[in-house]
Amino acid sequence: MQPSMNIKNLVKKEVAGLKAYSAREIPCRVKLDANESPYGLGDALKAIEVIDTNRYPDPEAKKVRKIMARDLRVKPGNILQGNGSDELIYYLIATFGGPVLYPVPTFSMYGIIAQALGEKGIGIPLDKNFDLDTAGMLSAIKRERPKLVFLSSPNNPTGNCFSADRMLKIIGAAKGIAVVDEAYQPFAGGQGFLTFLRDYENLAILRTLSKIGLAALRMGFLIADETIIEEVNKVRLPFNVNSLSQAVAVEALKEKKQLSSFVRSITAERDRVSRELEKLEGVVPFPSEANFILFRVKDPDAVYESLLKKGILVRNISGTVGGCLRVTVGRPEENRAFLEALRKILISGQGE
Amino acid sequence: MQPSMNIKNLVKKEVAGLKAYSAREIPCRVKLDANESPYGLGDALKAIEVIDTNRYPDPEAKKVRKIMARDLRVKPGNILQGNGSDELIYYLIATFGGPVLYPVPTFSMYGIIAQALGEKGIGIPLDKNFDLDTAGMLSAIKRERPKLVFLSSPNNPTGNCFSADRMLKIIGAAKGIAVVDEAYQPFAGGQGFLTFLRDYENLAILRTLSKIGLAALRMGFLIADETIIEEVNKVRLPFNVNSLSQAVAVEALKEKKQLSSFVRSITAERDRVSRELEKLEGVVPFPSEANFILFRVKDPDAVYESLLKKGILVRNISGTVGGCLRVTVGRPEENRAFLEALRKILISGQGE
Repeated sequence: MQPSMNIKNLVKKEVAGLKAYSAREIPCRVKLDANESPYGLGDALKAIEVIDTNRYPDPEAKKVRKIMARDLRVKPGNILQGNGSDELIYYLIATFGGPVLYPVPTFSMYGIIAQALGEKGIGIPLDKNFDLDTAGMLSAIKRERPKLVFLSSPNNPTGNCFSADRMLKIIGAAKGIAVVDEAYQPFAGGQGFLTFLRDYENLAILRTLSKIGLAALRMGFLIADETIIEEVNKVRLPFNVNSLSQAVAVEALKEKKQLSSFVRSITAERDRVSRELEKLEGVVPFPSEANFILFRVKDPDAVYESLLKKGILVRNISGTVGGCLRVTVGRPEENRAFLEALRKILISGQGE
Repeated sequence: MQPSMNIKNLVKKEVAGLKAYSAREIPCRVKLDANESPYGLGDALKAIEVIDTNRYPDPEAKKVRKIMARDLRVKPGNILQGNGSDELIYYLIATFGGPVLYPVPTFSMYGIIAQALGEKGIGIPLDKNFDLDTAGMLSAIKRERPKLVFLSSPNNPTGNCFSADRMLKIIGAAKGIAVVDEAYQPFAGGQGFLTFLRDYENLAILRTLSKIGLAALRMGFLIADETIIEEVNKVRLPFNVNSLSQAVAVEALKEKKQLSSFVRSITAERDRVSRELEKLEGVVPFPSEANFILFRVKDPDAVYESLLKKGILVRNISGTVGGCLRVTVGRPEENRAFLEALRKILISGQGE
């Protein structure tokens, strides 16, 4: 038996300060908390039947990257596959280091992963319209010389796209890599920032299949100049995307019409739900170009709990954005259930 | 258009010095290069049919961890799931930092991941029997105070288990975490180092499903005291193991008899192939407790190429262990094809 060691003292100080992701499972009837698509692509699972479970995955994920390259009109060499775009954020920070700059509020993983890797995270508050504070970001770039800048557009949890001109100013001023995280871009329409890849060699774009019906797979993509891809590829684990997810992604990505129709349903529902929320006394929905809606209520904790009692799970982010809840756009009947429940709660005064 | 930037200058110096994993695919008839099992568990793929592709995976992988905990006679809280044990090595180094100590030759990822994370790797040569150089390791522990020590046993690529008493001396002397990587333990028999978890609170064990027929899944496990698990869990990405792999792993792990029978076939074949190799003039096989055999030949490059011409793919590791090739144990007919081809090559003198 050894003398007692204090394992916690062995941990890197940045890691000691982290909290593990809370995985509390909350039972519910209508799950609108995680920005998942309400529509699955079950047919694509048939691709699984032909896999040799005993063989390692294709370390280059060639088939998936080829399809994505064609869809995005880039070369396969401009694409790196990740076990979710989370993992690509890990790899970007491992490759370039910190400081890591991002606006706040935004996707929490930029800051968490920076801390996990012992790098400094710098959050600059968004302006009152949830747009980028250009002056604040530029001043942070000058002062801190961040190795990485993360801009999530559409932004989570606010739902809006940042102004393109502000984004371009920041990307142009950055002395490091500027990463535009387009996880929610399919719901905003257009090509996003892919068109700027040619003009800004420090620009990298993140995409994911998690929001369009394939969250179960964990499949994200980094799109950038080959030089960036080659460097990030050095820190990638060789078999980071398993064979099952590769096979299902290939099948699912063939179903362009179905994927587009799901996205159209979700955006139409988003706009409808937004209009309905606007009609409700005491509810302020914010404009969204994503698959979720941020909205303000008088007593977010009470509304959250009352919704949950009725079986409707949304995300309470009042700790991050004062007074706000975030609801994922679900199927029409799920959205109706949500709106109906919210209406009743507000009328009965449970949420005030 | 921006003024030209030199992206490579932005990369962390440790990463700049890394080479990406070479994923060259080598066409062959008999694939004995990657220490995969020759036996798949295709029936387990049926579990895939019931997955909602649009939902995120269970971030805690509860079902898989529960089964593993029962099998290994530990608590679920003593187990952390990884996207392959590779990823757990990443997380261990992110959590505890470096220096990272390991014997050489061993699994190359300890050193590669340490470098990717900017930490110092220290390799201490094995002795002439491929066992641990206790004095060398203890002296490195004293001098460098490594935060992590990795001991792969059975060791890849040498195939042997290290002496338990030498391992225990090193684990006991380590001021940091000692990780025993038991990827190949099922082929060695017994419980491995699980029995020592109670005595050494700095001991952590790695297991994987990759060698027993499920390499396609990417599923690895860290087994350790809850304090270690809790700290490493802080740097884990919430959804690091996808839903498909979780479901298939649960199904496959139910098939204990099949899994054991595959392991028995492989170990019986390993011993038979070793005996056959011993009979060959100019071939020296080393004792193996894994699912592969390291063997020395006069001209490894020529033998490797000649085998490949006959459609047999093995691993040429003569760059790491002088004069040596490594052959994975395959199905009986694959092993026969390998032995037959090798015999012919040696007789014809192509391998000299």
